[in-house]
Amino acid sequence: MNKPLILVTNDDGMFAPGIKALVEIAKELGEVVVVAPNSPQSGQGHAITLTAPLRLHKVNVFEGIRAYECSGTPVDCVKLAKHVVLKGREVDLCVAGINHGSNASINIIYSGTMSAAMEASLEGTKSIGFSLLNLSFEADFEPSKYYARKIMKYALENELGTGKLLNVNIPDLPLAKIKGLKICRQGDGSWLEEFRESQDPRGEKYYWLTGKFVVNDDATDSDIWALTNGYVSVVPSYHDLTHYQSIAYLKDLENGVNS
Amino acid sequence: MNKPLILVTNDDGMFAPGIKALVEIAKELGEVVVVAPNSPQSGQGHAITLTAPLRLHKVNVFEGIRAYECSGTPVDCVKLAKHVVLKGREVDLCVAGINHGSNASINIIYSGTMSAAMEASLEGTKSIGFSLLNLSFEADFEPSKYYARKIMKYALENELGTGKLLNVNIPDLPLAKIKGLKICRQGDGSWLEEFRESQDPRGEKYYWLTGKFVVNDDATDSDIWALTNGYVSVVPSYHDLTHYQSIAYLKDLENGVNS
Repeated sequence: MNKPLILVTNDDGMFAPGIKALVEIAKELGEVVVVAPNSPQSGQGHAITLTAPLRLHKVNVFEGIRAYECSGTPVDCVKLAKHVVLKGREVDLCVAGINHGSNASINIIYSGTMSAAMEASLEGTKSIGFSLLNLSFEADFEPSKYYARKIMKYALENELGTGKLLNVNIPDLPLAKIKGLKICRQGDGSWLEEFRESQDPRGEKYYWLTGKFVVNDDATDSDIWALTNGYVSVVPSYHDLTHYQSIAYLKDLENGVNS
Repeated sequence: MNKPLILVTNDDGMFAPGIKALVEIAKELGEVVVVAPNSPQSGQGHAITLTAPLRLHKVNVFEGIRAYECSGTPVDCVKLAKHVVLKGREVDLCVAGINHGSNASINIIYSGTMSAAMEASLEGTKSIGFSLLNLSFEADFEPSKYYARKIMKYALENELGTGKLLNVNIPDLPLAKIKGLKICRQGDGSWLEEFRESQDPRGEKYYWLTGKFVVNDDATDSDIWALTNGYVSVVPSYHDLTHYQSIAYLKDLENGVNS
């Protein structure tokens, strides 16, 4: 039997410890190709590069693994991987991460890691984004690797539901302290935004985004609850943003405009 | 009674005819503040600027209207508008666009216009993104203005459902040929990607994204169907990406990992 083909990407670039952890697991499970951005792309969401050319360079970072750096966004990386590097060859699984920092709740929307994973699923490829709730490059990735290995094995042998996309977040705990894995819905939260106002050396004003995440959800089926309570959260995700319950509600607008 | 406060933004920048059309309608309906990017930001999705400072400059583009150019993404514009320009003052309605080109179907995910609108709705503000299915700056915006005015009036007087967000697309037709407005779900489609490969003047290879949109949906309740058949499409949208039907389906994974 042919080995499954696994595409690995992230938004923190080729030298982040998180991608090294994923490559190590992917190597055990299949043939691995890595395409990752050549600069940090946190918060890039589903951005694509329309108005500039993209560069792609082969790099020798992971022993025995084909790896390419790309000048674009995480979503660009997935598009280039599938259509240029792999020339349309079928990918069995795309994994993104392991991101440094949470992509639970609404953070999925801002996340370059999750957008890369979603891009692969949009084209019909099973896809998983992994994130560890620790921003430091010194973080311990062993517990994440334990769960990522199990989830990737499952994904190679099973379907992942209609969306073909999982958002996996791992609490920053030693393996023995993690209580297990929970299938969840996306929890409700928001960013309490602030901008730090300052002046550059030339006296010009600038603003720098900062903020505090606020949880607006105390139900026990959310990813936020799972993570707070020591579980690995897995949210099956999808690219359909329709709010179906509002369709009937808005018939008023349709009738008003059309009358 | 105080006039409602309307925030106008886009992803094509301050000099696109689409934003002028929206500002003209907004002026009739309330107090207007404009914050738009200082460079074209098509395809920026939900990108935010985390690793660089943002600039904000007052500009005199629309007679009698407070307007600011921002160095960041469309989502940055909304954040800066709400937290710096308006200092947290309640916004009654945010409108983004009128975008040059479709944001129907999965294009909502890549769209800077729709991401700006979603950012406002994430913070609890009613919000609408408008797009005209014509990429040219010479397009006729009068039919779009007719519908945008009706929809914005409705939004100021009514709730917009739980998501507080509408994705409005307008077919490129004369007003008399438009059959009316339809509340729809997000249609299913995908991009058949290609990259144009070429060499720069120094002989270095580059890739430029191109592609063809393919419709994978022939049901009559989708935005794609509505637009193809001469209707203005309105999709109530939301930031919850959970694929709820897959939660039960994936219990196998939970049981397998936890056993």
